[in-house]
Amino acid sequence: MAILKTDKILLSHGSGGKASHELISELFLPAFDNPFLNQLNDQALLEVGDLRIAYTTDSYVIDPIFFPGGDIGKLSVYGTINDLAMCGATPLYISAGFIIEEGFSIDELRKVVYSMKQASDLTGVKIVTGDTKVVNKGHADKIFINTSGFGLVDKDVNISVNRAKVGDKIIISGSIGDHGIAVLSKREGLYFDSPIESDCAPLSDLVKEMLSVTKCIHCLRDPTRGGLATTLNEIAQQSGVGIMIEETKIPIKEAVKAACEFLGYDPLYVANEGKLVAVVPEEYSLEIVSKMRDNKYAVDAQIIGEVVSEPKRVILKTSIGSVRIVDMLSGELLPRIC
Amino acid sequence: MAILKTDKILLSHGSGGKASHELISELFLPAFDNPFLNQLNDQALLEVGDLRIAYTTDSYVIDPIFFPGGDIGKLSVYGTINDLAMCGATPLYISAGFIIEEGFSIDELRKVVYSMKQASDLTGVKIVTGDTKVVNKGHADKIFINTSGFGLVDKDVNISVNRAKVGDKIIISGSIGDHGIAVLSKREGLYFDSPIESDCAPLSDLVKEMLSVTKCIHCLRDPTRGGLATTLNEIAQQSGVGIMIEETKIPIKEAVKAACEFLGYDPLYVANEGKLVAVVPEEYSLEIVSKMRDNKYAVDAQIIGEVVSEPKRVILKTSIGSVRIVDMLSGELLPRIC
Repeated sequence: MAILKTDKILLSHGSGGKASHELISELFLPAFDNPFLNQLNDQALLEVGDLRIAYTTDSYVIDPIFFPGGDIGKLSVYGTINDLAMCGATPLYISAGFIIEEGFSIDELRKVVYSMKQASDLTGVKIVTGDTKVVNKGHADKIFINTSGFGLVDKDVNISVNRAKVGDKIIISGSIGDHGIAVLSKREGLYFDSPIESDCAPLSDLVKEMLSVTKCIHCLRDPTRGGLATTLNEIAQQSGVGIMIEETKIPIKEAVKAACEFLGYDPLYVANEGKLVAVVPEEYSLEIVSKMRDNKYAVDAQIIGEVVSEPKRVILKTSIGSVRIVDMLSGELLPRIC
Repeated sequence: MAILKTDKILLSHGSGGKASHELISELFLPAFDNPFLNQLNDQALLEVGDLRIAYTTDSYVIDPIFFPGGDIGKLSVYGTINDLAMCGATPLYISAGFIIEEGFSIDELRKVVYSMKQASDLTGVKIVTGDTKVVNKGHADKIFINTSGFGLVDKDVNISVNRAKVGDKIIISGSIGDHGIAVLSKREGLYFDSPIESDCAPLSDLVKEMLSVTKCIHCLRDPTRGGLATTLNEIAQQSGVGIMIEETKIPIKEAVKAACEFLGYDPLYVANEGKLVAVVPEEYSLEIVSKMRDNKYAVDAQIIGEVVSEPKRVILKTSIGSVRIVDMLSGELLPRIC
């Protein structure tokens, strides 16, 4: 077992990027060693009785808690729904654990809770169990929410981060970077000519529609913390393949592109909360993209590249025709983005 | 809908007592309105396919994170196992969500994680999915852990806080107040002649053994935040009955009694983490207690009272023969006790 390079937890251990992966592989996996966790998917796939149950958890510590296009409540429900959808599950039930700072406004709590209710009503995924803890003022920041959730997966669906095959096509469901830039602009009080909203949205119906084309979807993942670049690296590493993507094919809104240029961010690393990356067999790829574009959350779906055998890295063909290696996020770009 | 008496979240909203109940009934229940949550059990009982699935969540914000008899890791695994056991479920799988303060010691994290591993190994309940978030220094306090969990309930088991019947006997599985006093002594640097340890323990095997006597157990609840007094009030309120208990029958360790007297606490309100209250039909009560005493976590199990029709309150017969009403915890006795 390698030794972590530091004796203190750093912000980058929560980035979703390299340091997060180190912490998971060097501390959590050796302790909790079991085949479900070791798959390194965003959800565990469990056989219980005759059922295949997908199970996941996420904590939300986003700052600020209200941002253009959403709030911590909406995010906490859709985030967990999306983690379940990413293995093809139909999400059923959600739990909600609140950690609240003493002195937090009950009006704001009510807004957050009603936003969760709305997200639950819109998706039909019920919040069935919960818990509330309060910590002394100054020992938490306003409100943190954990949601866990479970859902059912059909017997013939096998979607996992380690199933990408050479020749598969890579699809992104829409423009990247919206969530990260929306939250950052609110946090830092930045104003852009075209307001940028978070893409925070539930993707379970979209996945169901994709699976109606074929059950042979190999990988699905939502590129949240660490962005598209980190997600593609996870797929490449876990599947033992290379991935080649084309910069010109990746949808990015002009306003997000401009904001990233202004702020010095690479949009490939900026978080999304309503997008998915799919790795699918070439023969189904056009039909899947066409089906996706009928869904309001994926009208800009694009094939952005393909799985290759070598090199076992993520390679970007830039708009000027050169190629560069796209690595996993190193350090921390935007702390508390979800 | 009544209006909460304050516009800010108070520590007492996390006490498990009156203010917690107000927040739940006036804010969470109207929003998340569904029959599973409305039962007000510590877990939701869900029918999925042919299975009856119990599902629960709890966040742990205990201070200090290491205390005599346990730590936040052990607590977070056994706490969720116990919430599942309290409806007669066999716990199967657990999720773990970590919120860590930047700068937290990786050595301490490793200790906490290995303590979770040990709790998981001892009970066979696997930790199968997880998440780690890091917040800036000063925006959380060391480490908060959320666990959720699910398990299976047999078809003929129906245990719920609203099923107490007049004539039923009330059983406590052992001495009360150990956890609260152990944590407080560590937090405040108090030393007692006889060291007091938390009772933090998994109760799922104990419940299984009790159910081997009869499936007709009416209520089970672990008296954590708010203590025995609050738990009995929840049972009385939800079942629409009264409860009469006898002070002399309630097991309390001498050291805990002395500490409570010294600190001015009523042990009835002090938190426990390895005890359960059972409400059972009189005809099975002696056999259940006898069975319980064979389990190492319930050697001091006692019948402490019974369910009565009137008054619809919790009444304590004191050691000197007088009676007094025992209300639900009001205010907050010991913040961050779990």
